Amino acid sequence: MKAYKLHGPKSLENFKLSDYDEPTVHDHEVKIQVKAVSLNFRDWALANGWFGYPGEKLPFIPFSDAAGVVTEVGSSVTTLQVGDRVAANFFPDWHDGSFSAAKTARSLGGSTDGVLAEYVTFPENSVAKVPDSFSFAEAAAFPCAGVTAWHSLVVQAQLKPTDTVLLQGTGGVSIFGLQIAKLMGAQVIITSSSEEKLTQAREMGADLVINYKETPNWDEQVRALTQGQGVDYVLEVAGQMARSVKALKAGGSIFQIGAVGGPNDEAPNLGMVPINTQRIQGIYVGSTQMLTDMLHAFDRNQLKPVISKTFDFDQAKEALAYMGSGSHFGKIVVQVG
Amino acid sequence: MKAYKLHGPKSLENFKLSDYDEPTVHDHEVKIQVKAVSLNFRDWALANGWFGYPGEKLPFIPFSDAAGVVTEVGSSVTTLQVGDRVAANFFPDWHDGSFSAAKTARSLGGSTDGVLAEYVTFPENSVAKVPDSFSFAEAAAFPCAGVTAWHSLVVQAQLKPTDTVLLQGTGGVSIFGLQIAKLMGAQVIITSSSEEKLTQAREMGADLVINYKETPNWDEQVRALTQGQGVDYVLEVAGQMARSVKALKAGGSIFQIGAVGGPNDEAPNLGMVPINTQRIQGIYVGSTQMLTDMLHAFDRNQLKPVISKTFDFDQAKEALAYMGSGSHFGKIVVQVG
Amino acid sequence: MKAYKLHGPKSLENFKLSDYDEPTVHDHEVKIQVKAVSLNFRDWALANGWFGYPGEKLPFIPFSDAAGVVTEVGSSVTTLQVGDRVAANFFPDWHDGSFSAAKTARSLGGSTDGVLAEYVTFPENSVAKVPDSFSFAEAAAFPCAGVTAWHSLVVQAQLKPTDTVLLQGTGGVSIFGLQIAKLMGAQVIITSSSEEKLTQAREMGADLVINYKETPNWDEQVRALTQGQGVDYVLEVAGQMARSVKALKAGGSIFQIGAVGGPNDEAPNLGMVPINTQRIQGIYVGSTQMLTDMLHAFDRNQLKPVISKTFDFDQAKEALAYMGSGSHFGKIVVQVG
Amino acid sequence: MKAYKLHGPKSLENFKLSDYDEPTVHDHEVKIQVKAVSLNFRDWALANGWFGYPGEKLPFIPFSDAAGVVTEVGSSVTTLQVGDRVAANFFPDWHDGSFSAAKTARSLGGSTDGVLAEYVTFPENSVAKVPDSFSFAEAAAFPCAGVTAWHSLVVQAQLKPTDTVLLQGTGGVSIFGLQIAKLMGAQVIITSSSEEKLTQAREMGADLVINYKETPNWDEQVRALTQGQGVDYVLEVAGQMARSVKALKAGGSIFQIGAVGGPNDEAPNLGMVPINTQRIQGIYVGSTQMLTDMLHAFDRNQLKPVISKTFDFDQAKEALAYMGSGSHFGKIVVQVG
Repeated sequence: MKAYKLHGPKSLENFKLSDYDEPTVHDHEVKIQVKAVSLNFRDWALANGWFGYPGEKLPFIPFSDAAGVVTEVGSSVTTLQVGDRVAANFFPDWHDGSFSAAKTARSLGGSTDGVLAEYVTFPENSVAKVPDSFSFAEAAAFPCAGVTAWHSLVVQAQLKPTDTVLLQGTGGVSIFGLQIAKLMGAQVIITSSSEEKLTQAREMGADLVINYKETPNWDEQVRALTQGQGVDYVLEVAGQMARSVKALKAGGSIFQIGAVGGPNDEAPNLGMVPINTQRIQGIYVGSTQMLTDMLHAFDRNQLKPVISKTFDFDQAKEALAYMGSGSHFGKIVVQVG
Repeated sequence: MKAYKLHGPKSLENFKLSDYDEPTVHDHEVKIQVKAVSLNFRDWALANGWFGYPGEKLPFIPFSDAAGVVTEVGSSVTTLQVGDRVAANFFPDWHDGSFSAAKTARSLGGSTDGVLAEYVTFPENSVAKVPDSFSFAEAAAFPCAGVTAWHSLVVQAQLKPTDTVLLQGTGGVSIFGLQIAKLMGAQVIITSSSEEKLTQAREMGADLVINYKETPNWDEQVRALTQGQGVDYVLEVAGQMARSVKALKAGGSIFQIGAVGGPNDEAPNLGMVPINTQRIQGIYVGSTQMLTDMLHAFDRNQLKPVISKTFDFDQAKEALAYMGSGSHFGKIVVQVG
Repeated sequence: MKAYKLHGPKSLENFKLSDYDEPTVHDHEVKIQVKAVSLNFRDWALANGWFGYPGEKLPFIPFSDAAGVVTEVGSSVTTLQVGDRVAANFFPDWHDGSFSAAKTARSLGGSTDGVLAEYVTFPENSVAKVPDSFSFAEAAAFPCAGVTAWHSLVVQAQLKPTDTVLLQGTGGVSIFGLQIAKLMGAQVIITSSSEEKLTQAREMGADLVINYKETPNWDEQVRALTQGQGVDYVLEVAGQMARSVKALKAGGSIFQIGAVGGPNDEAPNLGMVPINTQRIQGIYVGSTQMLTDMLHAFDRNQLKPVISKTFDFDQAKEALAYMGSGSHFGKIVVQVG
Repeated sequence: MKAYKLHGPKSLENFKLSDYDEPTVHDHEVKIQVKAVSLNFRDWALANGWFGYPGEKLPFIPFSDAAGVVTEVGSSVTTLQVGDRVAANFFPDWHDGSFSAAKTARSLGGSTDGVLAEYVTFPENSVAKVPDSFSFAEAAAFPCAGVTAWHSLVVQAQLKPTDTVLLQGTGGVSIFGLQIAKLMGAQVIITSSSEEKLTQAREMGADLVINYKETPNWDEQVRALTQGQGVDYVLEVAGQMARSVKALKAGGSIFQIGAVGGPNDEAPNLGMVPINTQRIQGIYVGSTQMLTDMLHAFDRNQLKPVISKTFDFDQAKEALAYMGSGSHFGKIVVQVG
């Protein structure tokens, strides 16, 4: 089969397509013919050598988000059969329940092989069935960015129609966050440097928008838009914790996502966190159960993931470069099979 | 001032309008000129002598749900001022936090004087400010039925977009439940004996409907509509616990509302409750904080309470009779001031 | 290997010891040499044909609770190795997270083969490591009764030191409940028909005791002992729901355990459940994670399960008869290997 | 009556005892003859002018924690009577329910008058009844430090017997934290610079101790004592967030208490918070309900607050100086009446 591998030293140049043996299924595993994968900023950062996982073994198959068709099932598999349409969870070992370090030790396309290949194998419990209403490209959009937003807003925040959510930019996590927040009756404030993207966000239901190029002190603008109170929740994906704390309501929570803190972020002042009873909650994607729930909720409510652009399998490098350009609105997809 | 009082022995005949002294405010209280009140089934049952509260003192002012204007504030009041538009909470002593017997010992128009009067006084903490978007009639619709649905679906269930809710009939609690459930992205199944009401419910967003006159075994129909699984939540307002348990998903919850179990209800079989890990949760209206939250959520999302019919102050008996006829869809309101 | 099987028609006579082939491990499974098993009332009821599971296939290996040593690991197993001391979870498919019907479809010694055998195999995720401080007999005591009490009081009730718990009798669930409740600083009221057992319970920390033979209206005695308020939680194992509801505080919860409602139990009156905001919550054992947590908590706090009596492998029928006699205090164990 | 007031500019010298008129009760208030007050580090910092509250009005009566006897009740008071023994809550407006900025705007002895006076008045809902087992000195120890620890460990953490808690030093919050954690079956690691205090902590049940003078890298020692995992919870009272994050388990929570970050604390590195799914949760004392619950739990379990030293009313300055010396273990009390 054909697959990409990222070779050392990590760089876009060492991101190479070759032929490999197809993987074999263990008793409790399924084999999946990959139909589509989606990209996350993490994939770009990994490919460019910005960071690595402890015990990294090069080369490895990159990318974490895939959807495809089951082509073989192991002898112990009971819940899936050949022909089922499925999406793989970001963590092959976090099926259910709350976070643990052990469940998140292996993540696809990072600390273990990923999905940018024609065939992959996964434990039965680490894949979710895909409702018929989604194409493979759409299904592949959910695992990392979608589950991160779902884990934050549904599982942790248990969003209520009285809440206001701040979303930063129009990348995958933020756009999924917008869809979830509006689905649950919450109010949304979203930021972008592009008027065009802000218009798109408004069309998707965003209640209030801030152009952070024109309003660099966007935290003050958030307070102005909320009668001085601030927001109940921030999906902090921008490495802007210092401003996010200032934009947060007393009693509110920041979901801190992504370990890649850019060098321009000033150190947050946590001095008022106790008196304001605020919470900073780290979020690291989520479980197969969350992925399953999210697919079900979006299907039932006729919501689709927003796909910014789709590339062919042999254009995976171009897809990465597009991610690096930051011009996307929603998800970037590579068609595989 | 003019006010109704229910005299003993309790009956519609002993529901009388007279002149009384206006109440005086204590330091922490506000005086409210009542503009509108709404009715609940409890008011009809109380007026007809179906039940009474321990230590009942006749005569008392009936009805629990009112909205009006603050005309005087006590010397210790800090959060309200003359002219504020407010709605009163069902329990004058349950301001916030979780249920306790002490907080719910006094309920308006039952174990203490109610609101069917031109002027009433309440502790500052037991009234909620009313957003400008609501008329007084609309604001008066929320306290008992609205807060009951909010307490069940938002506070207890913490509804998620993967949930399915079963609503029984088209009375106040069920219609508020429909609005809340759809606002939060959940699926709704609703029952009625009237095709016309089912059509109205569909127009408000109900996903699936059951005419229980045509389908008396509505619990079986609920299972059929949910791939055999049953629903996640039931707002049990019909005294049909036996069927409600059968319509409930394994792992689901029934919110049991109202102590008035009709004589036709068969005893529920709780034998499978453990294996199905089901929950029966009693609900008894809620707190001022819940009322405040609900008004805020409905205002922000341009939702209005559904008012079936409005009566004048001197038609309060006719309003009660209309409640007894069961022909309403949503709330019944009496204009007072 | 030697194993017992329950043959049809189900009766103590058809509970037979024979030789069978040893089971073989799949990739994600471990093979365990069983050292000890414990009994639950369910085993007695099943063996006597009181009930059966849907799709029951006779004969099957009975009993659900086992501890032993790993003697072989499948090729995909990563967290266990040969020589590890482990206990098996009641549900082989409920590893983690919240209840679902699918996770609880298979239960050991009922709807699938159990553990009264020299060797058994289980998925890696369905066994818990046993701390060194426990003997195999002690470890075998936890899975069904212990996890049921843990799930109720720790996971669902999230017991606080202000709570009062009512325990019915001195069987396995109640004695584990006593240990957990006292460990978490709660107050315990326990009932029994035996003064000797009540004395034992007091020595283990029970704060208040009721002899229900001398005080058949034990619900009234519970209220008297709690200043008229009732208890926060009941572990309802006695099929006495009617009295349990009366003994429950407004705002309290009954954990309903076991589907075997005796014919003498009167139908509970749920009429006041709403006004009292009470909860009835079915409980059906729990997950491998709960078992792991409980073993850890008991180990760390130097708590041991209470073992009433131990039998040899060839005395398994006598052990069942002893269970039927009701004279035990805590758990009954059969030594296997 | 006699009362202390803190005059401007704030300093220990401007902390003066004088005669004032007794306060008068409003309808919903009670008048309390103060019998004992306790000190918190905040009182020392305020008296020394380290910080002030927005809108501070000098002079004001300092100190927040008092216990005494009700000597008069307002006309609307229903739950208290003359002669009742009570303790006042830190926030007069946070009676119940979850945090809000409005409920915490007024705090005793800071943004409003405090309790270092012979008589004080409070709203009925802002005082808790004191069980007979506590002296006034003991009762006065609870409000600020005790409720802070209770809010953190019981309300927020919902502590389980599998948890490990890290406590920093032996001040009021930490020693209450030790008592609560052990009461609930959790494991405790405590730090101090004094072997004598560590010995005292061990005698009170601390499982593991660290002398941070001998082991300045105490975060590494915490990891070593927890098999490399870190602790589930930290009560962060030391302004040592950088090390606290390192000592925290993946999935764990830091309760950040007190806004007074010492100048020596390095900025915490939050870069791994997402991958470790950690939480930083600000805590700002708590509600009257929490105070009531804590008094009940300690009474029922025969626990007493630890009082380091007691001073007479005219020695309040010496009591403050003793607080500044840092030589206390537990609480410092001033007898008033």
